[in-house]
Amino acid sequence: MIDFNDSIRAVVWENKTLRLLDQRRLPAESIYNSYDRASDVAQAIRDMVVRGAPAIGITAAYGVVLSAQHRYAQNKSDWKNAMQDDLKVLAESRPTAVNLFWALDRMRRCMDTIQSDPIPVLTAEAARIHEEDIEANRTMGRLGAALIDGRVGLHTHCNTGSLATGGFGTALGVVREAYAQGKVEHVYADETRPWLQGARLTAWELVQDKIPVTLLVEGAAAHLMKLGKVKWVIVGADRIAANGDTANKIGTYSLAVLAKYHGVKFMVVAPSSTVDMKIAHGDQIPIEARPSHEVLSLNGQRVAAEGALAFNPSFDVTPAALIDAIVTEKGVVLHPNKEKMSRLF
Amino acid sequence: MIDFNDSIRAVVWENKTLRLLDQRRLPAESIYNSYDRASDVAQAIRDMVVRGAPAIGITAAYGVVLSAQHRYAQNKSDWKNAMQDDLKVLAESRPTAVNLFWALDRMRRCMDTIQSDPIPVLTAEAARIHEEDIEANRTMGRLGAALIDGRVGLHTHCNTGSLATGGFGTALGVVREAYAQGKVEHVYADETRPWLQGARLTAWELVQDKIPVTLLVEGAAAHLMKLGKVKWVIVGADRIAANGDTANKIGTYSLAVLAKYHGVKFMVVAPSSTVDMKIAHGDQIPIEARPSHEVLSLNGQRVAAEGALAFNPSFDVTPAALIDAIVTEKGVVLHPNKEKMSRLF
Repeated sequence: MIDFNDSIRAVVWENKTLRLLDQRRLPAESIYNSYDRASDVAQAIRDMVVRGAPAIGITAAYGVVLSAQHRYAQNKSDWKNAMQDDLKVLAESRPTAVNLFWALDRMRRCMDTIQSDPIPVLTAEAARIHEEDIEANRTMGRLGAALIDGRVGLHTHCNTGSLATGGFGTALGVVREAYAQGKVEHVYADETRPWLQGARLTAWELVQDKIPVTLLVEGAAAHLMKLGKVKWVIVGADRIAANGDTANKIGTYSLAVLAKYHGVKFMVVAPSSTVDMKIAHGDQIPIEARPSHEVLSLNGQRVAAEGALAFNPSFDVTPAALIDAIVTEKGVVLHPNKEKMSRLF
Repeated sequence: MIDFNDSIRAVVWENKTLRLLDQRRLPAESIYNSYDRASDVAQAIRDMVVRGAPAIGITAAYGVVLSAQHRYAQNKSDWKNAMQDDLKVLAESRPTAVNLFWALDRMRRCMDTIQSDPIPVLTAEAARIHEEDIEANRTMGRLGAALIDGRVGLHTHCNTGSLATGGFGTALGVVREAYAQGKVEHVYADETRPWLQGARLTAWELVQDKIPVTLLVEGAAAHLMKLGKVKWVIVGADRIAANGDTANKIGTYSLAVLAKYHGVKFMVVAPSSTVDMKIAHGDQIPIEARPSHEVLSLNGQRVAAEGALAFNPSFDVTPAALIDAIVTEKGVVLHPNKEKMSRLF
């Protein structure tokens, strides 16, 4: 289901091999790395070859297929036990995005039903997770775009597009759909330090699909809002708690506070697999601390003086009170709280 | 007046030559460029060899001395007229920081009094501007530090230290003085995109002077405030309007909104030469738009896909209502407004 405004796939399953577009090299080079071991897939997730909560979940599901191929070839009777270590390594690759655990749980439940050769069944399940994600993104695109009135400026953070998902995107799917409907005056993407997902990935995706995009440093977001250029901030999510509190890429919470101050609306777009009803509040979501060198260096070159330290949380939590709408493929929750969330999920 | 916690000078006058520490190369290399023409000094300001409102003013003052040396050598009678073009070129180097125009006005008034050889008189005047700036910074350091209660975390933006001034610094002078008084639990410096003055310059200055510093991306500032790590945000200024509205490095306004939301206090530290009583409101302050490549590239390498645009204002305006204190060498204005500002200036 590739069309004019959705031409990119970050995760590809082909000939029993997983191919991942190496997002660390974009936009300079579009290179796919091939994987046939689950442990290498876990390392690729950790190293951010692939990133974005839904894409991580899909990648992990294919990682389970690779594990099955490997372990079933080794041992036709005890493959389920042999796979446990691979599942554990995949689960430990990154801590914040819940889609990873959701996808692994789903693959594990599928495994439980299998008596003979697991490969065709697990391959089909992983492909289904992948296809359902794209379908969910299409649905969210429509639901999210319907919330936008008139022809307005949109601000998006990090990358939530085809590169971050099975395809089409979550927040960027809403941007794509709204653009197709003529509702977008302009797309503003902040560069999203320290990994520059906005500058490197979102700008690249939008340029590929001929959607005009203007980049800004994150420090300029408040000034842009004050100028009245933006009516909606639209972001993805790595985990949404039962009350609607949302963990997402560092800098999201800052945008939510700025949006509230300027009367700009704030939309979170994520598949229902991102919602973790077992977690009551956002402050219970584990936040990954990434290595200091991501802040102290640029392109492998030290930027800060030796001796400087770094504070480098990869995510922050936006309280539900700052969110105007959570858009999932199951429906939209306006001004989310515990009651409204329970009703939908 | 160099001491244990103030060891750096960005602007040096020596043997009738102006030497500027090339801040674009820091912290990798400490290289001083030499200048003997006013037009080259203007280019150095434009290219950000030297930056920071007070340092730009001091540099321009020495640029006037270079112009006098050049023009008086050429023509002992008509040197004043011959200098006008140099003064114009210096005035056009950057638009937002008012200290530039203030320093040029002061040098012009000094020129008006001179009948014979202008060089000794103008050299003395430029040196006086330089020395008075350091003295003002020391005074502001004491006044600003006195506002800080207990032992707390401080957040600073961009670079406002010795590198941005004649020496010691404005906001970073307050940080230095507060640190010397044992009032600082920790200094947090955001990296300040796109020029990374925080990462490259502030971290370097503080490490030189053995003050512990932790860097963060600007997107992490809100999360840090939510964690309760910061009690004051302390920033400099490029121009302060008659009502207290303050233009400063892009990202300052964002921090002010976030500080207000989190109950964190917000201090602006700038010499009285930064106050422009001719400008009633912040929205009348001209904001420099810098070239797109500063956002689209990193270290000369393109980061964003070809076709992406950039929004790159170099400054933003923080309304007086978000400012708890404006600290100048003439005194402190708490919760600034037009009346309180008029009383002091």
